[in-house]
Amino acid sequence: MDDDMDGTKAAETDMAENVGLSKDGKKVVIIDQSELPARTVRLELGTPGEMFGAIQKLKVRGAPAIGIFAAYCMYCLAQQTETEDMEDFLKELEKYGAYLNASRPTAVNLSWAVRRMIRTAAEHAPKGRRGVLEALGRECVKIQEEDIAMCRAISEYGLGLIREGDGILTHCNAGPLATSRYGTALGPLILGAERGMRFKVYADETRPLLQGARLTTYELMRAGIDVTLICDSMAGIVMKNGWVQACFVGCDRVALNGDTANKIGTSSVAVLADYYNIPFYVLGPSSTIDMDCPCGERIEIELREEEEIIKKYYKEPMAPEGVTCYNPAFDVTDHSLITGIVTEKGILRAPYEKSIRKLFE
Amino acid sequence: MDDDMDGTKAAETDMAENVGLSKDGKKVVIIDQSELPARTVRLELGTPGEMFGAIQKLKVRGAPAIGIFAAYCMYCLAQQTETEDMEDFLKELEKYGAYLNASRPTAVNLSWAVRRMIRTAAEHAPKGRRGVLEALGRECVKIQEEDIAMCRAISEYGLGLIREGDGILTHCNAGPLATSRYGTALGPLILGAERGMRFKVYADETRPLLQGARLTTYELMRAGIDVTLICDSMAGIVMKNGWVQACFVGCDRVALNGDTANKIGTSSVAVLADYYNIPFYVLGPSSTIDMDCPCGERIEIELREEEEIIKKYYKEPMAPEGVTCYNPAFDVTDHSLITGIVTEKGILRAPYEKSIRKLFE
Repeated sequence: MDDDMDGTKAAETDMAENVGLSKDGKKVVIIDQSELPARTVRLELGTPGEMFGAIQKLKVRGAPAIGIFAAYCMYCLAQQTETEDMEDFLKELEKYGAYLNASRPTAVNLSWAVRRMIRTAAEHAPKGRRGVLEALGRECVKIQEEDIAMCRAISEYGLGLIREGDGILTHCNAGPLATSRYGTALGPLILGAERGMRFKVYADETRPLLQGARLTTYELMRAGIDVTLICDSMAGIVMKNGWVQACFVGCDRVALNGDTANKIGTSSVAVLADYYNIPFYVLGPSSTIDMDCPCGERIEIELREEEEIIKKYYKEPMAPEGVTCYNPAFDVTDHSLITGIVTEKGILRAPYEKSIRKLFE
Repeated sequence: MDDDMDGTKAAETDMAENVGLSKDGKKVVIIDQSELPARTVRLELGTPGEMFGAIQKLKVRGAPAIGIFAAYCMYCLAQQTETEDMEDFLKELEKYGAYLNASRPTAVNLSWAVRRMIRTAAEHAPKGRRGVLEALGRECVKIQEEDIAMCRAISEYGLGLIREGDGILTHCNAGPLATSRYGTALGPLILGAERGMRFKVYADETRPLLQGARLTTYELMRAGIDVTLICDSMAGIVMKNGWVQACFVGCDRVALNGDTANKIGTSSVAVLADYYNIPFYVLGPSSTIDMDCPCGERIEIELREEEEIIKKYYKEPMAPEGVTCYNPAFDVTDHSLITGIVTEKGILRAPYEKSIRKLFE
């Protein structure tokens, strides 16, 4: 870590390096988040298999970042589609899109970005292959720039919910690495720190893949924010101690009724916050809201490999050979436990179906 | 693991080898629980420092097991006390006891066993050094035998609370390794399995030291019980899925009003169980009840090293250098969240102060 960097610069550097294009504009460049904080490894990904693997293996993660990444992927894959027949070209793109979509089922931003890129290609099809590629090149940059602006707006709204000196508990990672620049759940804290405000953040380590320990503490420490790492099982005692004035979490998919899918363990944080009378806020761009999904029961929850719980990161297996594990990557927080959903367009309050419909009017 | 062993035999073997005396009767022998399940290492401990370290480093753990261990330690240390002056002898014993007590502040069984051994020594002081040593040798074996009988009785009462096919969630480890033979929280399941009953157990891995992953799954698999390992953050989704009919946990100290200290994360499980309307039971011998402690706020919570969260078990540090951690080893579950406290003398129900006082009448 570079101690000379102040928070803003560090956040900007992270953002700039998070997802982008290689110098020749043909490959997608990412920081491999699965290697942080031990090593900052940049990867250049050119093939569909490499791109699929990067999402599935969480080298790129965070719902908004996955969306931006998918847009850049679609642009690079479009360049590899050599046909001049625009019907065949679009069919190829659709195939690539469906393939990328299959890498992780829960986050809505992935399919949202893929769809947007395909729509852009279709709209520019009359201009031929070259015109479509130019349009796609602009569109993925635009998606990233929009995300930066959205994160900034979310951060402003979120900052209005807390006060100097507050303790904020967060689960998983919804900072610059998961998005662009400020992040969603961490955005208000990073924006506040830029303005000289002090907060005390409690970061759940977030088993099994430790995004809180590895990424959230890394980002907050670089931004000069006071952060204390806890195990997920300690969120309750930290709340009981009176140290937490608000919970801020990101989201991977929000249903029309406000039910919210986010990293496994989020719903337990919400239940605890409810019990200890602490406001619980979900922060994310409005693109995370899935109007086609009426409620949480309809959100598909990704199940991941047992190995993540038993072996990953450890020197040796931490459970007996052959043990059965259950490893859902997400859970759904019931809308009744959510104090507000902070989007770039404002803060949604219950009843959510009404406020969400109004948002998209 | 020996596949030829059936559950009962394995449990008995664990019990017999869990805490005991060396062949010459001068050292305490334990299975090093910090090495399980990868390695079954037996340790012979002779010096006060070795004994203190074994408790502090969780080589021996589980409130009842620590009590039994402390009793054997006091016997071995008494043998090393060479004075024939019984006043000096008792003073030496008191010094050893105070030293051992300092190793872990939360579990009441430790100081309870130390006190009982000192009282035994005092009662037999008129018989001289040899008479005292004989009495102490009998007393530590008696404490272990009483624990076996208590665990059996607790298991019978606990078994009456669940039905064939139920899903049971447990946190940390309160099985044979933590006690003698059946265990407390796992006792009803192991006893039920001996009678051919089937249960489905969900074991929280129990960060940071993974007693659930390392020990609870190990014990249940050896007993032939269907166990699924989950991260602590997954307890909520497992309850929401309708898979859990009861929570069974052990206890390190129970206050007069029923507030219960147990492994960090236990109180969060209780809040979740309350939210999902699932009964939450604490199981432990009545010696875990501290009549001198009016309520949970008076229970000292042991804080442990940051290294356990960031580095222990991992191939490399899982958080940035210099990160701050908060690592309490226990939390206190409010009595209002506890459906019942299962002791060897019966099941206590709220109001706990009344039922606890009645128990000791």
